[in-house]
Amino acid sequence: MFNTFGSLFRLTSFGESHGPGIGGVIDGCPAGIEVDEGFIQAELDKRKPNNAFAGAAGTTRNEADKIKILSGVYEGRTTGTPFAFFIENTNQKSQDYSKLADSYRPGHADRGYDMKYGFRDPRGGGRSSGRETIARVVGGALAQLYLKKIGIEIFAYTEAIDGIYAKDFGEISLSSCGERQFFAPNVEVVNHWQKRIEEVRKDLDTLGGVVCIEAHGVPAGLGEPVFQKLDACLSYALMGVGAVKAVEIGDGTAVAASRGSKNNDGLQYDDEGNLCYASNHAGGIEGGISNGQPIIARAYVKPIPSVAKEQKTVSKQGENIVLSIGGRHDICAIPRIVPVLKAMAAITLMDMVLLQKRMENNGIS
Amino acid sequence: MFNTFGSLFRLTSFGESHGPGIGGVIDGCPAGIEVDEGFIQAELDKRKPNNAFAGAAGTTRNEADKIKILSGVYEGRTTGTPFAFFIENTNQKSQDYSKLADSYRPGHADRGYDMKYGFRDPRGGGRSSGRETIARVVGGALAQLYLKKIGIEIFAYTEAIDGIYAKDFGEISLSSCGERQFFAPNVEVVNHWQKRIEEVRKDLDTLGGVVCIEAHGVPAGLGEPVFQKLDACLSYALMGVGAVKAVEIGDGTAVAASRGSKNNDGLQYDDEGNLCYASNHAGGIEGGISNGQPIIARAYVKPIPSVAKEQKTVSKQGENIVLSIGGRHDICAIPRIVPVLKAMAAITLMDMVLLQKRMENNGIS
Amino acid sequence: MFNTFGSLFRLTSFGESHGPGIGGVIDGCPAGIEVDEGFIQAELDKRKPNNAFAGAAGTTRNEADKIKILSGVYEGRTTGTPFAFFIENTNQKSQDYSKLADSYRPGHADRGYDMKYGFRDPRGGGRSSGRETIARVVGGALAQLYLKKIGIEIFAYTEAIDGIYAKDFGEISLSSCGERQFFAPNVEVVNHWQKRIEEVRKDLDTLGGVVCIEAHGVPAGLGEPVFQKLDACLSYALMGVGAVKAVEIGDGTAVAASRGSKNNDGLQYDDEGNLCYASNHAGGIEGGISNGQPIIARAYVKPIPSVAKEQKTVSKQGENIVLSIGGRHDICAIPRIVPVLKAMAAITLMDMVLLQKRMENNGIS
Amino acid sequence: MFNTFGSLFRLTSFGESHGPGIGGVIDGCPAGIEVDEGFIQAELDKRKPNNAFAGAAGTTRNEADKIKILSGVYEGRTTGTPFAFFIENTNQKSQDYSKLADSYRPGHADRGYDMKYGFRDPRGGGRSSGRETIARVVGGALAQLYLKKIGIEIFAYTEAIDGIYAKDFGEISLSSCGERQFFAPNVEVVNHWQKRIEEVRKDLDTLGGVVCIEAHGVPAGLGEPVFQKLDACLSYALMGVGAVKAVEIGDGTAVAASRGSKNNDGLQYDDEGNLCYASNHAGGIEGGISNGQPIIARAYVKPIPSVAKEQKTVSKQGENIVLSIGGRHDICAIPRIVPVLKAMAAITLMDMVLLQKRMENNGIS
Repeated sequence: MFNTFGSLFRLTSFGESHGPGIGGVIDGCPAGIEVDEGFIQAELDKRKPNNAFAGAAGTTRNEADKIKILSGVYEGRTTGTPFAFFIENTNQKSQDYSKLADSYRPGHADRGYDMKYGFRDPRGGGRSSGRETIARVVGGALAQLYLKKIGIEIFAYTEAIDGIYAKDFGEISLSSCGERQFFAPNVEVVNHWQKRIEEVRKDLDTLGGVVCIEAHGVPAGLGEPVFQKLDACLSYALMGVGAVKAVEIGDGTAVAASRGSKNNDGLQYDDEGNLCYASNHAGGIEGGISNGQPIIARAYVKPIPSVAKEQKTVSKQGENIVLSIGGRHDICAIPRIVPVLKAMAAITLMDMVLLQKRMENNGIS
Repeated sequence: MFNTFGSLFRLTSFGESHGPGIGGVIDGCPAGIEVDEGFIQAELDKRKPNNAFAGAAGTTRNEADKIKILSGVYEGRTTGTPFAFFIENTNQKSQDYSKLADSYRPGHADRGYDMKYGFRDPRGGGRSSGRETIARVVGGALAQLYLKKIGIEIFAYTEAIDGIYAKDFGEISLSSCGERQFFAPNVEVVNHWQKRIEEVRKDLDTLGGVVCIEAHGVPAGLGEPVFQKLDACLSYALMGVGAVKAVEIGDGTAVAASRGSKNNDGLQYDDEGNLCYASNHAGGIEGGISNGQPIIARAYVKPIPSVAKEQKTVSKQGENIVLSIGGRHDICAIPRIVPVLKAMAAITLMDMVLLQKRMENNGIS
Repeated sequence: MFNTFGSLFRLTSFGESHGPGIGGVIDGCPAGIEVDEGFIQAELDKRKPNNAFAGAAGTTRNEADKIKILSGVYEGRTTGTPFAFFIENTNQKSQDYSKLADSYRPGHADRGYDMKYGFRDPRGGGRSSGRETIARVVGGALAQLYLKKIGIEIFAYTEAIDGIYAKDFGEISLSSCGERQFFAPNVEVVNHWQKRIEEVRKDLDTLGGVVCIEAHGVPAGLGEPVFQKLDACLSYALMGVGAVKAVEIGDGTAVAASRGSKNNDGLQYDDEGNLCYASNHAGGIEGGISNGQPIIARAYVKPIPSVAKEQKTVSKQGENIVLSIGGRHDICAIPRIVPVLKAMAAITLMDMVLLQKRMENNGIS
Repeated sequence: MFNTFGSLFRLTSFGESHGPGIGGVIDGCPAGIEVDEGFIQAELDKRKPNNAFAGAAGTTRNEADKIKILSGVYEGRTTGTPFAFFIENTNQKSQDYSKLADSYRPGHADRGYDMKYGFRDPRGGGRSSGRETIARVVGGALAQLYLKKIGIEIFAYTEAIDGIYAKDFGEISLSSCGERQFFAPNVEVVNHWQKRIEEVRKDLDTLGGVVCIEAHGVPAGLGEPVFQKLDACLSYALMGVGAVKAVEIGDGTAVAASRGSKNNDGLQYDDEGNLCYASNHAGGIEGGISNGQPIIARAYVKPIPSVAKEQKTVSKQGENIVLSIGGRHDICAIPRIVPVLKAMAAITLMDMVLLQKRMENNGIS
């Protein structure tokens, strides 16, 4: 169904940006997970408008975004029954959007919605609002609590903003990328990004970037050989986050101009008898199945379409108009999109782990 | 489930490359589609080993690949009941693969399978064989027969092989790309690709490429706003074909270095009052929903991992070995992958059309 | 999944009897339904412990059971987005159950739970508590609001308690059965039932009964011919309510001793040209598909297994013990089960209506 | 979807009674099952028209009904990939049905189909034909092969025909009920049934009966506590077989007039320390979960609606007509329905076993 993600670890998301709040139900959650509410809240805080990680990129909408757990936890652990949660909306200003009601904003789904539903809720996007991703971040946080226990850790960091790549300014380091401004993988790039964002804001424009997700500790064998391939599922998860226009696994687009002999990741036992791969062009996935190397995926994020610059467009009434969008908008989907992409990767891996566990148990011994 | 694709137009695929054959069942197929078997067979023929489109790239395995319809058709039209079909395997040579049984081929899922299942069928990949895609091509052909009737046409062509882009040699033309060698979008590039493939074959290596899929005539409004976004579903469909390592929608990776003011596709009414987009950076999808422009998606295909060159790898028994793979392998997944990607896009769009039709009918009037 | 009911109108239920509360999410709810909260609350009130309909049969647990809508409604109408709701638990007394923690109560799932999960939450049943049915009643009420608009009305009444049949004391009348004590279909039987229940309570025992559900105004053509037959789905819905041990459609068990010539419901046009059935042995369903006559289904409800009388059983520790169950238990699942069964029938019919609407829209015209 | 049954062990059925044949695909089948084709064929033979078990009750349509396995088996064992199969139709006589094209046969879905689809295939029912149950019998046979290995055996026998109960003529014995005429549970009743059927045939009428299904060796703990209850799923499975109008678990309808103290199945340890139930009123299911006792379910089968006697009905064109149905029809759905009901119970239990195995593997240890 339209509001459910995952097959065994299933998140059903609900709520609108200008209704009472945003929530979700996770069915299929294994029993016994220690529910570290501090961790869940910390992931939510990273997605929050105007948070400490956003630097110059943020909106000025303030939301407390405090999670309230409604079911599925007993004495601090999941019980295996549905885990339901709710986050109240506390700062709705629907009047902000009234003047946009009749404009088809370029780069938005406004016209698509009108064609689809015959009407459109201009108040911040309704279900299609970025606030819906709150439910995903909670689901992803719960998944991460489980995955950590079995040795899988997920990292997400900003690789580039507006074509400025972090790797050109310092070494990529996963160790504290989750705590750094912009979720930068090194300190050196931060000021460059900050400066560029400020310039673009002054220019009344917006900008995009690249997010890298890595999953370490993933055992070989996750993913199904025909349709629920690990790379296909990850791709669905990441492309399903608004603003993402391309998804790569491992070397991604570059493989198309490589050769088999180079692109293959050769394996050898080293002197101590450990199995080693010579490279990781495949991003940890071969034939749709994890091979034990780190999973590496990239999401390419388009610039926020709501630009303050004047743009030509049309009104619902059929006139050519000129539009300039103010309001409390972000200049860049990064870094707020980073915890969302991390969450989607986490839910996907969680689902794959449970699928694999299920299969292991099916044989006749 | 693992062997089913689609939610309303559901293809369940079955069969192994070295069993009796490959088949599938399509449940949810609308009644009344004229089943043009010639068209279905023609799509299958394009995917066939050693076909006329493959040029120098092909394998020497010969298969008749003749479709036999088992159910769901009456007097030449679908009845709305499950459409089942079967294609016999006629040319199995499992002995070819025997010497690979104990080697983990680089770039393949061999080790993943061993980790996953505890064993692996070396006979051409079993379910994970390219032959499984026969079922997808049939499903896609049936979907195309429906989509054509409602004005949606899908094109798939090879954009580049080994970094040689067709657009550098002539204009891109959709009109007969489906009938040209390599599914080339112009005549001029064909010899360049042919030559490069021959060189690489002599070099005992393999090569990759880029496939572009376009869907014209797609109405605005397809796709769901939260999880079953059109771009997410397309991405799942294309990344789920073996060898694909990146998927782009519209400008894809390039959006990450663009600006909002440039990346937005402005709309205006022209002098005759027709709604026109100034560009199609979005590839026809905004906010996960089609906007009425052509859908444009790209799949980046890795070089075939089975190279004749010597490669270092390990055996199942834990030794370092050197491997050189002969057998009846393709040098390049392109062009045989082209009809498969086209089919996957067709099934996805078909599903989205049916989802949209369902929704339209749900309101209280 | 385990906590979801329905395919197109999907209720996902969450919450435990001794947690914060009970809630649910309905995905697939059509847009535009006028959400009459008074009606939903009235249905909930009929299911409430110690309500006006229960007469002598009830428990003394008091719960406000006030619904709070969390999403999916705008200006009093459903929007087509997920409809989420929550009902707080206000009167938990888990100490009541402590002494039962180590006993396997006869007629309960206590031992099954221990075998299944390795542990068991003795506090009123957790998810398996009757309180979970709150979510079903809300889902059913929303479904009824839609069904009424398209002319389908659902009635549920108590046909018999402890073998005392209402029809033996007066005519069956649907008109105000929903407002009468015990949901009795006539006034005459009420005192007989009241008296019998009091006797049995004094005897420290419990008793069962029969509930009849009728749906009027159901158009011909609902239900699918192979697996999602209307009668199979209704059966799943009703048998899935705790305490139900048999489900009948139409004449039910009696058909097994009837003859074809008698059991068939003949059709004829009357003098005014209206199509009339001579009988309704089939209960409105033939070949799994509604035929336009009233749908008639019966659920046979077992006596509450928690009896105050002494019973032999075993403890978790492996001893033979004698148990007498006090606490705030009902004497009879009827009448509180009546609105639950009505709700399950409503959700099932709603699902079937949406399935049928979907199909109607799928053909090529 | 409409043509799929089961959630983890999923049967997708295809084919029409007058097309090339009937088949199915089972996805989710565990690897390693020894595929005893003889057993599968024997189950099919019991369902066959005009078989040795039918006695006087059968049709004269002859079909070979030989199974052909299309995929999923390697060296005699299931591989875990989809198990597909096909059974050719060899004896179609669609002319038999031509004269019924415009009549709405009483007791059939004819009018429902017309209302649903706008047309109806008179040739023996198309998908709704009894021949579709072939796919179920194969699925059930495969499930039984697995269930037997884990100690679960399923029995199905005829309890009564036309009100004549087997238990009134001799003891009920499961041991060879599957090999006896009419699947009778004792020898004594066979002649009584045979005689009654002959009388009713002469009277140009048809008759019904009761089928009992027992599953022995089912471990405690199968079934889910909220929606996928074992009794609800069994009920869906059995009521979904054409002609079944009531389903009972354990004492079934009788519980409604029993008392808690009597209806509860008390447990005690006997002198050797074995856990014993004093009775099995619950039919092995309490709270939707198996309790370790034999599962007992009953299906009440209506008389075949195609009677040779004259019946009043209407034509599609709106006239009152008189109809008498000849053709190759059974007089009684029993005994041919018995292997079908057995198969449906087997698939349901198989699904529940796999669900339970999945769950066991989900916890964090």
